[in-house]
Amino acid sequence: MIQNDLNIPTEVHETPGHPVVVAKTSEDNVSDPHAPRILFYGHYDVQPSTPDDKWDTPPFEPTVRDGNIYARGACDDKGQVSCILEAIRAIQQNHPDKKLPCHITLLLEGEEEIGSPSLPKFIKDHTDLLGSDVCVVCDTSMWNADTPAITYGLRGLLYFDIQLHGPSRDLHSGVYGGTLANPCNILTRVLGNLFDDKNRINIPGFYDEVDPLTDAEKSMWDKLDFDEHEFLGQVDAKPYGEHRYTTLERRWARPSCDVNGIYGGYMDKGAKTVIPTFAGAKVSFRIPASMNPVRTAKLFTDWLNDQDVADLEWKLENHGVAYPTITPLDSPYMTVAQTAIEKAAGKKPALIRDGATIPIVADIKQTLGIDSLLIGFGLESDAIHSPNEHFAISRHLLGIKTIATFLKNTSQMNK
Amino acid sequence: MIQNDLNIPTEVHETPGHPVVVAKTSEDNVSDPHAPRILFYGHYDVQPSTPDDKWDTPPFEPTVRDGNIYARGACDDKGQVSCILEAIRAIQQNHPDKKLPCHITLLLEGEEEIGSPSLPKFIKDHTDLLGSDVCVVCDTSMWNADTPAITYGLRGLLYFDIQLHGPSRDLHSGVYGGTLANPCNILTRVLGNLFDDKNRINIPGFYDEVDPLTDAEKSMWDKLDFDEHEFLGQVDAKPYGEHRYTTLERRWARPSCDVNGIYGGYMDKGAKTVIPTFAGAKVSFRIPASMNPVRTAKLFTDWLNDQDVADLEWKLENHGVAYPTITPLDSPYMTVAQTAIEKAAGKKPALIRDGATIPIVADIKQTLGIDSLLIGFGLESDAIHSPNEHFAISRHLLGIKTIATFLKNTSQMNK
Repeated sequence: MIQNDLNIPTEVHETPGHPVVVAKTSEDNVSDPHAPRILFYGHYDVQPSTPDDKWDTPPFEPTVRDGNIYARGACDDKGQVSCILEAIRAIQQNHPDKKLPCHITLLLEGEEEIGSPSLPKFIKDHTDLLGSDVCVVCDTSMWNADTPAITYGLRGLLYFDIQLHGPSRDLHSGVYGGTLANPCNILTRVLGNLFDDKNRINIPGFYDEVDPLTDAEKSMWDKLDFDEHEFLGQVDAKPYGEHRYTTLERRWARPSCDVNGIYGGYMDKGAKTVIPTFAGAKVSFRIPASMNPVRTAKLFTDWLNDQDVADLEWKLENHGVAYPTITPLDSPYMTVAQTAIEKAAGKKPALIRDGATIPIVADIKQTLGIDSLLIGFGLESDAIHSPNEHFAISRHLLGIKTIATFLKNTSQMNK
Repeated sequence: MIQNDLNIPTEVHETPGHPVVVAKTSEDNVSDPHAPRILFYGHYDVQPSTPDDKWDTPPFEPTVRDGNIYARGACDDKGQVSCILEAIRAIQQNHPDKKLPCHITLLLEGEEEIGSPSLPKFIKDHTDLLGSDVCVVCDTSMWNADTPAITYGLRGLLYFDIQLHGPSRDLHSGVYGGTLANPCNILTRVLGNLFDDKNRINIPGFYDEVDPLTDAEKSMWDKLDFDEHEFLGQVDAKPYGEHRYTTLERRWARPSCDVNGIYGGYMDKGAKTVIPTFAGAKVSFRIPASMNPVRTAKLFTDWLNDQDVADLEWKLENHGVAYPTITPLDSPYMTVAQTAIEKAAGKKPALIRDGATIPIVADIKQTLGIDSLLIGFGLESDAIHSPNEHFAISRHLLGIKTIATFLKNTSQMNK
């Protein structure tokens, strides 16, 4: 049990990977033993900081400038986790008895960025410790700088390292060029086949499980006034993707496939005339609610194994799958959260989905049987996963206020 | 001017890199002022000797055992150069006036193993010094341990670094996946288009300049009894390439295209869900005689620019081109060389090509206007570029005898 200034019993639980931290209010911390039980989820791990030379200030020396905190993890997810802690502190400071209006369990993991390999089992093994009425995840974004949001849908993920192995050693391309299968040539040919001429994923049966969007949801999204050119213009890109869908539909409701990396042969400056012994790629898919990532993973590996790769051999590594999720728009906690946000921010939140993946939301649903409300204060421009990640101090304060209000309003729900 | 026991005027010429050594017979050295002029080419630089602990005897202490000389450079190329010197010495020792039957210019460079960066300019600046009737290159191999060879054709080379640049920074594939053009996805699609379903290079007009092989040459190659399965089996590979051609034809007479390297996005162990700002590849072509590498380079870059790459942008870097070469089989020097080898070895030489590139042969043709005869006495088993490089004394003697006979016979050519 770890001592902390919020006086909430906290324990570090070892796992096969990085430890899980759980802080859980005792009866002493809470004013009403029958108060609702809120599970907050966040993570303390971060993406690699590389390339470090692209940062204006060192990634692990948090620096405040122009109203922002710059650091790896400033937004994703240490900054957002700190909103929960500060909300608790604020409530305690404003109540002479330091009692909180809800039971709170704060679950912090250290493996979110690598797909949370240890957490599902941890949750399964600790259902009593973690059991709650609803989960609040603080790891998402606002709709825009002026509009807070509740994210009610997430895409799932599957991620593979695929390698094609060929000759027993690197070869001279003059002596061997044209006579044997070059792993770089064949791998790029296979990857080149991944999409058809309408930018649809070219794997038979791939779209069978994709539910079409309802008219109600489409019309709600239309009202968001999403500007695809502005969204993509911020990163000097233009809309491109599956034909006949809007950019928002492609992000939130359609599957996508990205080659996240390619490697093989000579990769340095200059020229080396080599035929490499192998070549590889990182390939991932994002899948919307209704798709099953295990089934999709099998479709992909079956498709790879069906490709003509001459006498080369695949070495496939599955880096894990994550299920997509959706929280019903008519859930009562959804209503309380909307009200709390409106009060803290002075504006109704947008109800949105996200193209990204928080695998643990699906695990929490499956194991603890509860929905998650994804209430976050990030922005696309925060450069999470990139150099110069940052988080605005104003949004940090909004996060604190929102969570404190949510806790108070939730305690009043059934009264 | 350097004194030497062969009494041939020798000079060391500085270059921006390692110096070039030129030994050129004076009128005093040669019996007939109208004798043919032979340019010999070799190199005095060697590959690194590392890993030194894999050598049975020190790499720079030449050691004779089991009929071989073991040392770095024993074959590539000091041993072969020494055949020229010892042939000259042998002729001098057998003639009371020490006169040689031909004018000889011996050109030794010190940058062959790094692509001869200084030599083309040196040749251009010294056409009078180097001007000759034919060039003999002593840096190649026999066909097999029993069969000497003259290599009469080399493929040319063009080598590009091609990069596709897209979003202004690395992006989160959940947030952006499906909405914009991913440089890894598009680059692999372009590379995947490089070949058609018959493994032919898919660039319009690419084969226009490729001369078909004559029946005479085909039949000559058939008699070489080349075993493609043995050749490729040594590197655990199987024959694969352009349909309707043999492995030997693909190596020597057909163009090939190899992706020598691919790079982009996340290339380390594990998973990172990134859409990279760019992706790149090293792409090279080997082209047989009759193809112009400058024209081929333009076909390739035009083709790249014609590909649909959405809003991504190419950054193309041409790492240089090397022309292919062919020495006519009916060249009179070819005939003299064949006779000399047959007399020295007791066996007719195989007339072969090589799939690799020796750029200097094309430079000599273009600048000095002369063909080269590639007469070498190496074997695949000599372990050039590897530990325990060696050269058989019997092949050293065969080289000396061959060159001495060639010089004598050449002087009789027009008589």
